[in-house]
Amino acid sequence: MQIWRVNVRTQTLTISETPVLWEKLGGRGLLARILVDADIADCDPLGPRNLLIFAPGLLVGHRLSSCDRISVGAKSPLTGGIKESNAGGRTGYHMAALGMKALIIEDRPAQPQEAGWWTLVLSKEGVRFDPADDLAGLGVYAAAPKLLERYGDKVAISLIGPGGEMLMAGAGIQNIDKDRVPSRINARGGMGAVMGSKRLKAIIFDDSGGERPPVADPAAFKAATKAYHKALLGHPQTKIYADYGTAAMTRLCNGLGAIPTRNFSAGQFEGADRISGEALRELILARDGEGETTHACMAGCSIRCSNIFADDSGAEVVSPVEYETIGLMGSNLGIDSLDDIAHLNWHVNDLGLDSIEIGAALGVACDAGLMAFGDGERARELLEEIRQGTALGRVLGNGATTTGKVYGVERVAAVKGQAMSAYDGRAIKGTGVTYATSPQGADHTAGLTIRAKVDHLSPEGQIELSRNAQINMAGFDTLGACIFAGFGFAAAPEAASHLLNARYGWETDAGVLQELGKETLALEREFNHQAGFTAQDDRLPEWMTRTPLPPHDAIFDVPTEELDRIFEGIEG
Amino acid sequence: MQIWRVNVRTQTLTISETPVLWEKLGGRGLLARILVDADIADCDPLGPRNLLIFAPGLLVGHRLSSCDRISVGAKSPLTGGIKESNAGGRTGYHMAALGMKALIIEDRPAQPQEAGWWTLVLSKEGVRFDPADDLAGLGVYAAAPKLLERYGDKVAISLIGPGGEMLMAGAGIQNIDKDRVPSRINARGGMGAVMGSKRLKAIIFDDSGGERPPVADPAAFKAATKAYHKALLGHPQTKIYADYGTAAMTRLCNGLGAIPTRNFSAGQFEGADRISGEALRELILARDGEGETTHACMAGCSIRCSNIFADDSGAEVVSPVEYETIGLMGSNLGIDSLDDIAHLNWHVNDLGLDSIEIGAALGVACDAGLMAFGDGERARELLEEIRQGTALGRVLGNGATTTGKVYGVERVAAVKGQAMSAYDGRAIKGTGVTYATSPQGADHTAGLTIRAKVDHLSPEGQIELSRNAQINMAGFDTLGACIFAGFGFAAAPEAASHLLNARYGWETDAGVLQELGKETLALEREFNHQAGFTAQDDRLPEWMTRTPLPPHDAIFDVPTEELDRIFEGIEG
Repeated sequence: MQIWRVNVRTQTLTISETPVLWEKLGGRGLLARILVDADIADCDPLGPRNLLIFAPGLLVGHRLSSCDRISVGAKSPLTGGIKESNAGGRTGYHMAALGMKALIIEDRPAQPQEAGWWTLVLSKEGVRFDPADDLAGLGVYAAAPKLLERYGDKVAISLIGPGGEMLMAGAGIQNIDKDRVPSRINARGGMGAVMGSKRLKAIIFDDSGGERPPVADPAAFKAATKAYHKALLGHPQTKIYADYGTAAMTRLCNGLGAIPTRNFSAGQFEGADRISGEALRELILARDGEGETTHACMAGCSIRCSNIFADDSGAEVVSPVEYETIGLMGSNLGIDSLDDIAHLNWHVNDLGLDSIEIGAALGVACDAGLMAFGDGERARELLEEIRQGTALGRVLGNGATTTGKVYGVERVAAVKGQAMSAYDGRAIKGTGVTYATSPQGADHTAGLTIRAKVDHLSPEGQIELSRNAQINMAGFDTLGACIFAGFGFAAAPEAASHLLNARYGWETDAGVLQELGKETLALEREFNHQAGFTAQDDRLPEWMTRTPLPPHDAIFDVPTEELDRIFEGIEG
Repeated sequence: MQIWRVNVRTQTLTISETPVLWEKLGGRGLLARILVDADIADCDPLGPRNLLIFAPGLLVGHRLSSCDRISVGAKSPLTGGIKESNAGGRTGYHMAALGMKALIIEDRPAQPQEAGWWTLVLSKEGVRFDPADDLAGLGVYAAAPKLLERYGDKVAISLIGPGGEMLMAGAGIQNIDKDRVPSRINARGGMGAVMGSKRLKAIIFDDSGGERPPVADPAAFKAATKAYHKALLGHPQTKIYADYGTAAMTRLCNGLGAIPTRNFSAGQFEGADRISGEALRELILARDGEGETTHACMAGCSIRCSNIFADDSGAEVVSPVEYETIGLMGSNLGIDSLDDIAHLNWHVNDLGLDSIEIGAALGVACDAGLMAFGDGERARELLEEIRQGTALGRVLGNGATTTGKVYGVERVAAVKGQAMSAYDGRAIKGTGVTYATSPQGADHTAGLTIRAKVDHLSPEGQIELSRNAQINMAGFDTLGACIFAGFGFAAAPEAASHLLNARYGWETDAGVLQELGKETLALEREFNHQAGFTAQDDRLPEWMTRTPLPPHDAIFDVPTEELDRIFEGIEG
């Protein structure tokens, strides 16, 4: 596997062998290693020194269920720290087939404003830069078909929407899925803005002539694959996700008093049943047409947590509707209509923006008097402001923290400038600890603790819980494994090690996942330290420590001294 | 002298003796001491834990020329660090007459949005909170006369405009001057937003029954006063400031290639002669009516650097027109009309905003395509957007950094989130060092080096130059002395010490100014350290290290390792 470096100023490609230190890492861990080694922690995130890196995880390229994810990383324009954001879709698999250990995109055009827009085409032939000015301003749902027409429907595509073009800190990068729909988004932390700063509208990964990555011990790999798949399919949660998708979380989170409601002013939503996983499934089943209750984002996935939401005429609205969007663009906005949520979801996707960040920003906008809670039509108008690039739209597109700052709203649920996901950290305190201390900023995928059998309202024991979750998640993200693949790896503790050993000829043991996770976190902390982060950045917002969350009147009361010790022993 | 503490939630006043540790400090140094001792460095700047502190300098209250300034401080909503902003006018003198060593305003109303607006009235009678809802939304030029009518024309008044009410990070606090015009602004760092967060529209200092602060040795004080005034009046620069005001700087700075031009894209402005101090003087003299070329902001000032600008009908437009405003709202916007600048100045004052921060924000807005350079009418429209509180207006009112972030403009001349003053740090590198390393964020008053006889374009020797300037300025700010009083103190090195010894019965020597300056800087650095600042915050923006400034093609090339050593030996 090789390192592909593309310089967007000189429009050149350099392919080199993977440095020894980088070999044992992939995905999130490799991004961190590359970013630390590049010594760019002090760079302007949208300036020429930042790197935009695509790295498939260590297990990507073999159609292992839920293990073909693509990690994208850079210094984040949203947090000012390190960022990894991963997604499903085809990109990871195609990169692996091209033999790419990582793609590092460097520099930016000399005169960015006059540079136009480009499509970066990568294949066995090398690199090509095609003008993409005709795609500028197009949403991803309009741009993707044009790219597929231009480059054939066998390629993988990563692209940005108007949000990324406008350098909004809430912008992500979309990847087409197995059905060629650009719905798989590296959503968090503004990676789309970094891509926009490099003037790339799209990247084409054409794996013609490529092949599956080599496997050191094919028989062992086959056996390990079988054991992993068996464990994954045998886990009860896998079935739940197939039936209800991530939306299964709505009732659970509402029951715990932790669902973001009206800009994080409450933890239970009276309309929760109308936007639950059950309601979503019933609605999809009740409507004839293109809707599907279960759907895979990557070939070979056996969880199939995705879905296709159709309107009452049976026409597809968006795919998928996920819990995070339900929480942030539903209950958080006081909206209890799945139709409204699905339409908002389509718009935010089309803009190439993170539905969590934008949902949080809209919640802040409600508190600023720009929208009434529950007014889905007004929410759609606000998304249209983003598309038009109005002042208000640009504020919202830059996320919740910017919106709160501009409008003087204190109640912004964010850490390191990044909005919280759909679990209020006051009522699920282990996840609150994750939000506070993750080098990534507030993000449930950095270490969600909701499934632990603990008193989520107690400050006791949450540090250890979050620490373990953060280590595991950093490990999964380094493998290229989806958060739900974790059910399989947890049920078959040797699986990750057996797969890695068979794939690479290594001799790891069952502790490898944690080792990878710890190494990744240590590297990320190192980057953030160099970027100027201190313990003061590892805090929930002050208002969450004094403003009680109904119905449990919970405040975030995990002591700061404990927060400051969470990574003791992990950092080198 | 006593410490007055007002709690705006309980609407109560507590008066206590000055703690021993605080006695030897005043103004900026005392603010720093109080803020560090309060252990609030981690607070939300607009939250209930922040303190808004008014502290006259050590020499305030005696009508010493240019030495009755009022320092206002808090944790800054603009920089996130410590902030001191000082101004002339009557406030300092009235506080001293009331025996106030410092006024500390604590907490905020329990339900800020429903709390209404208040006038805080302080006098020998104690405290009173008067409803001020009828003043809400009024500019300071409309609000001040109503307050004077209500409280008599002998009081001192500090008040905020719409900017502070809207919690804009570019908002200052205005003080009435000796002519009862609210033109003396604690401009920088968003102190007006902090006052707004505490729901105070105005503060009345009624010194009826008050008296001059005690003097330990009246005869010695008289002699020291005489020596100081003689030195000040004998300095050639004093005469220049009386004739031309700070606008004398226009030609000097333009000649050095350091005047901000078209959003800091050049250091010389072809229209500089039309907005110079000479042109300003000629224009004022040529117009009959209310204009004045020289004017004092405080009773007893012998420099009288201020002026009154009248339009061609002779009617007063604004007082004063200062160099910083000429630089930031003139050349920086490509505007070469003093009439345009004066009108913009009036508007920005009336809004209660910092003309430096807003001028810088408008410059960024030009680069964002929101205004053409040179279009004074459009600039006025943009200020009207601020007044209306539109999305665009709120973005601009929050300053240059927010504007750049929202619009994806890289060329923002700011440090720690605060815009640079009207000296480009690439061409006056000692001042660039001050911008980078001052705990206050980019601010010329923290240590301007333009008068030093050095090669301002060379990176050599700038650290030492800036260090000394920063120490001296922190010392002056602790005395309550205007930046121009420094000419007197420099010409009579014993003056500060003699004045302090006579006033307080101390036994300081000529080194006292530097000692006060060093102690102040050490305290400020301590606060910022606790707030999470690191060496990474002591940097000019990255683009200034690689984008050459015409005509000298200067970049900022003082090594970062040197920046990191500037305060060695000062910090405890």
